[in-house]
Amino acid sequence: MVKTAAESLIPTLEISTRGRGFLEISGELQAVVRQSDVQAGICNVFLRHTSASLLITENADPDVRRDLENFISALVPDGDPAYFHSMEGPDDMPAHIRSALTCSDITLPIRDGRLALGTWQGVYLWEHRTRPHRRRLDITIIATL
Amino acid sequence: MVKTAAESLIPTLEISTRGRGFLEISGELQAVVRQSDVQAGICNVFLRHTSASLLITENADPDVRRDLENFISALVPDGDPAYFHSMEGPDDMPAHIRSALTCSDITLPIRDGRLALGTWQGVYLWEHRTRPHRRRLDITIIATL
Amino acid sequence: MVKTAAESLIPTLEISTRGRGFLEISGELQAVVRQSDVQAGICNVFLRHTSASLLITENADPDVRRDLENFISALVPDGDPAYFHSMEGPDDMPAHIRSALTCSDITLPIRDGRLALGTWQGVYLWEHRTRPHRRRLDITIIATL
Repeated sequence: MVKTAAESLIPTLEISTRGRGFLEISGELQAVVRQSDVQAGICNVFLRHTSASLLITENADPDVRRDLENFISALVPDGDPAYFHSMEGPDDMPAHIRSALTCSDITLPIRDGRLALGTWQGVYLWEHRTRPHRRRLDITIIATL
Repeated sequence: MVKTAAESLIPTLEISTRGRGFLEISGELQAVVRQSDVQAGICNVFLRHTSASLLITENADPDVRRDLENFISALVPDGDPAYFHSMEGPDDMPAHIRSALTCSDITLPIRDGRLALGTWQGVYLWEHRTRPHRRRLDITIIATL
Repeated sequence: MVKTAAESLIPTLEISTRGRGFLEISGELQAVVRQSDVQAGICNVFLRHTSASLLITENADPDVRRDLENFISALVPDGDPAYFHSMEGPDDMPAHIRSALTCSDITLPIRDGRLALGTWQGVYLWEHRTRPHRRRLDITIIATL
């Protein structure tokens, strides 16, 4: 599912999604940070797409993601006849709106050689399209001096 | 209310909230930047929780925050029977949704040894839970060379 | 429309908007990155205002922006009598809410001397006020070592 490029401070992740839903990528990001050998600094994660999002949310109870998906599906209905942009189907424009309401870039602290996430925080790739897609993330690690 | 760790470029803030509402943290962040002695660069602020947010908004009229709270309360109702995740009460899942619709991380420019906020911009910790919580923020300062 | 300050790694953009709507700034940002001569790193863009946003969205079909504007206008109605903060008119408080639901800061990767945007990604300044405004953006470029 994940391929990591060779360069230490500017890796790339390629992630295959199974359609609409959440994939936790905290482990993949921790691996990239570990490989960089940076002890303190920041890790910028950037998603090169406008129909998926990066999300930090609760990582313990899967019902949290189920409720998030239900909430956003009701707020941004698929196939709304008001949409002008619908070339790729009923989930096309909703995916862009969901992306605009959430994030394509996150910047996380590195402490003691690890992403300093809270106990209950996970980083997720949130696929908004109903069909599977291959998504690319660029990761940049900057050390404090 | 606020404790600052000793290390110059990787400090931690611990903030006690009084339950749902806004606490301005611009002053605390400016103090951290000042202590770092960095003149130009960026300041990354990261909140280690998924039921509160970091928000940049208008700092002059408290009615702006009142209207923001009213808006989001109506958009994400407490105790909605549709939620599956409600272990910690009617404000549990709404807090995660509010967090997903706003930000857990912000990265701000430093100029002339200060956060370069606009005249009317304040940085706020937005507590989404109804009861008081202790919230931890990690701050990372990176200087341009 | 755009003025760029002289300093290489900490430039400023000033952009005049024509009122509510989207202005693509990808080209301006690419020019700033090119001038910096940084090959790999990050570019932080910060908007010094709380009634406009920075948005990354689809850059090919203008209907995407039309649908985004229609969606947010319906979600955050102008002139809602529920708003307490309305000093500057019916679009005053909605502009702050739109800003809170989107972003004031974005941090983008630099690869091979360019912003590593996806093929269909554009960076936009989203003006939320109905009248034209002059908007200031601070740009900070940090190189990986």
